[in-house]
Amino acid sequence: MTTFKATIAYDGTDFAGWQWQPNKRTVQAELEAAVERITQQKSKCVASGRTDAGVHALGQVVGFRSDTKLTGKDLCRALNAEVPEDMFVFEVSSVPDNFHPIRDALRKRYRYLIQDGRPRDIFGRKYVWHLKPRLDVSVMTEAAQSLLGKHDFISFQTTGSSRLATERTVLDLIVERRQAELTDRIVIEVEADGFLYNMVRNIVGTLVEVGKGKQPVTWPAEVIALRDRRAAGMTAPAQGLYLIGVEYGEILDFGLPILDSADDETEAPLE
Amino acid sequence: MTTFKATIAYDGTDFAGWQWQPNKRTVQAELEAAVERITQQKSKCVASGRTDAGVHALGQVVGFRSDTKLTGKDLCRALNAEVPEDMFVFEVSSVPDNFHPIRDALRKRYRYLIQDGRPRDIFGRKYVWHLKPRLDVSVMTEAAQSLLGKHDFISFQTTGSSRLATERTVLDLIVERRQAELTDRIVIEVEADGFLYNMVRNIVGTLVEVGKGKQPVTWPAEVIALRDRRAAGMTAPAQGLYLIGVEYGEILDFGLPILDSADDETEAPLE
Repeated sequence: MTTFKATIAYDGTDFAGWQWQPNKRTVQAELEAAVERITQQKSKCVASGRTDAGVHALGQVVGFRSDTKLTGKDLCRALNAEVPEDMFVFEVSSVPDNFHPIRDALRKRYRYLIQDGRPRDIFGRKYVWHLKPRLDVSVMTEAAQSLLGKHDFISFQTTGSSRLATERTVLDLIVERRQAELTDRIVIEVEADGFLYNMVRNIVGTLVEVGKGKQPVTWPAEVIALRDRRAAGMTAPAQGLYLIGVEYGEILDFGLPILDSADDETEAPLE
Repeated sequence: MTTFKATIAYDGTDFAGWQWQPNKRTVQAELEAAVERITQQKSKCVASGRTDAGVHALGQVVGFRSDTKLTGKDLCRALNAEVPEDMFVFEVSSVPDNFHPIRDALRKRYRYLIQDGRPRDIFGRKYVWHLKPRLDVSVMTEAAQSLLGKHDFISFQTTGSSRLATERTVLDLIVERRQAELTDRIVIEVEADGFLYNMVRNIVGTLVEVGKGKQPVTWPAEVIALRDRRAAGMTAPAQGLYLIGVEYGEILDFGLPILDSADDETEAPLE
């Protein structure tokens, strides 16, 4: 039995999210079916985290076990011939048997795309959140600073979630306007050691209120302090959200951590 | 009765092309319905040319007549509230009554997008032509030179078309690799004084054979000389094609031509 780690992309538009559901088209069901057609064996695919219906991924990480004798590279090629056209497999590699895609994730990074103002980008309608007013990116950037670092993010967790521990550390949060093919877009990227349910979409909805000028630049800090979901902005729609990467450190292939910077001068083994 | 000229964009994916057809969703039908809801009057919308099912537009030009007292600017705003989310109206202006969007078109420009190699851009699957092998853009660029200028393009006209006059002048033809958000893409743009049926898609299919190395760089010139559709490459699929603009000169708003360059030193009226 070999444990494999796959890095995959999917267009969330036509999926009812990652997780298997009866009579629904889900990413997990499509991937498991593709693996079974190749290996002639059922394998359960476990993702780093479930993505909701409509949410996209550019770097979702999935683990599965199989008796196949195929190498990761061969599995990757075979999977790309089997998965539907709204999925793509970047890489498959064999990893130590104790690898767990949820438990071992050190950091995740999400991207959220907003298109504001005119002309409306009709080609992006399933891939960005379109807002009629132009937003002030500089105040959004400033407001975002207060979310960096370790906080109780319970105000940004959609009610109904069962998570009890609600402290997370936001390691990076950028808000910038970038030129795309037809229009410019606002790109928001959030990297953290973990995310509460709908946390990115609730952060985006909150920053948008500041960008519209409806709330002051100090508002996100106030929302954190209130520890109340009703204090934050709306949940931004799913179609603008992309899981872009999951970081596992370098423990996977070698059974012990190695430095990931080629420039690092330390050669002593890490403990 | 006022004659209006509208510049519109549409995502061709979910349309059975521009032209009205019974029981089909077409751009013309959606636009005419939107105009009627606003003006309470039926107006026939005539485009610069019909686009086929799946073909997109970023600068289609449409003419229509109406008794409405609304200005072009107001009509534009009202239309954007009425058209479906895969259409957008950039501009509406009143023009002289003798304006005809087909007859008066001096030049048209099309863009064709190809994504070659890996990773496959799953988000572009309805908006680009994906080809597995990487193409050699430099030989495609060189091969394209022979298509510039005035030629009988009958070899690039899909059989079954009724056009008798098959000479056209290609004014510009670029082939270049550009970085897009996730991958790079090959952009082919063709500008001409007119196009035969499927001419751009047949030119693209022919240049792709050269880019794959299956035909020599001199092949497009040979295809022109043969005057036989069977000599050319395949018709590239509709989803990579965009009508990006139609040029009418500057006669429209003033009834006589004016110079369009602000830097031009000539102030004498044109004849």
